[in-house]
Amino acid sequence: MKLLEERIQKDGVVKAGNVLKVDSFLNHQMDIALFNAMGKEFYRLFADAGVNKIMTIEASGIGIACIAAQYFHVPVVFAKKAQSINLDGEMLSTKIESFTHKRVYDVIVSKKYLGAGDRVLIIDDFLANGCALEGLLRLVDLAGAQVAGVGIAIEKGFQKGGERIRSLGVRLESLAIVESMDEKSGQITFRT
Amino acid sequence: MKLLEERIQKDGVVKAGNVLKVDSFLNHQMDIALFNAMGKEFYRLFADAGVNKIMTIEASGIGIACIAAQYFHVPVVFAKKAQSINLDGEMLSTKIESFTHKRVYDVIVSKKYLGAGDRVLIIDDFLANGCALEGLLRLVDLAGAQVAGVGIAIEKGFQKGGERIRSLGVRLESLAIVESMDEKSGQITFRT
Repeated sequence: MKLLEERIQKDGVVKAGNVLKVDSFLNHQMDIALFNAMGKEFYRLFADAGVNKIMTIEASGIGIACIAAQYFHVPVVFAKKAQSINLDGEMLSTKIESFTHKRVYDVIVSKKYLGAGDRVLIIDDFLANGCALEGLLRLVDLAGAQVAGVGIAIEKGFQKGGERIRSLGVRLESLAIVESMDEKSGQITFRT
Repeated sequence: MKLLEERIQKDGVVKAGNVLKVDSFLNHQMDIALFNAMGKEFYRLFADAGVNKIMTIEASGIGIACIAAQYFHVPVVFAKKAQSINLDGEMLSTKIESFTHKRVYDVIVSKKYLGAGDRVLIIDDFLANGCALEGLLRLVDLAGAQVAGVGIAIEKGFQKGGERIRSLGVRLESLAIVESMDEKSGQITFRT
């Protein structure tokens, strides 16, 4: 998606350790006009997928998922990263290893809001090694729901997540795929 | 706001310990059509407030804030609950005590995205004792920004947060104010 690639070139910052900082428009400050363009594009890509629910994971996926949901006219469910006393009833849970935070955490979703008959579009801001996404796929599977597709804003194409998820037969679309990035020059190249 | 009150009556569940569960439409599964109606109402209430940025706190405020931001045509910044290695540069930080999670956590926002000249509308899903909101007000103050207003989806009017924040002279609007709720009968009464 041209608009997103241009924005990453303009405002993305490459940092040591394969970190691409896009917190000025994507995951700390959020450009809602850009999110709308991304939401429309996700709808174009998955309009035929029979989506009846969008799923994401807190926190930075929520904004993109909610804006995108306006085009699909479906509710959003976000997986939570820790047990909360306000979440009772039966929960589905799995463990996810975080590359960003260098730790393992529990991720939960209520059985009430994800179940058999659901065709789920998973939306998230980043795909790198795929651990978070694999966790969400496990939750969908545990719920007996189906994955209609996965929509990612920025995929780091030089890490293994995208390849691994696609090899499972999952319909995965990333709006921008970073092929390479260089921390010294700041150069970012996209997959064409 | 009639639509939200009706939804709380229909789908809200009163639990022990002054807990009002609205996770079927507000803060776990999210009804985006309802969020749009709430966003429009926030705009009606604060259209004259000179808002140039919406601020919220992860995770459950983000969806409402993003949908509302479409009416204001401003970016959203969300305060984060823990230090992340992806957030560098100078951060503003404060401590917030959580009623829900019964612990104290650090909340941070980048100085790059909140500063002098900003007129901030704070949006969140709940206001109870006001600790989270007071933390956000401190961050706005630390940034040298101004609070244009505070928009809350559900205020628990029988707790002290709303009264305390209003007594500071903050323009605070809650779309639904729960006057009382009874865990045995399940009855919920709104302030009129």
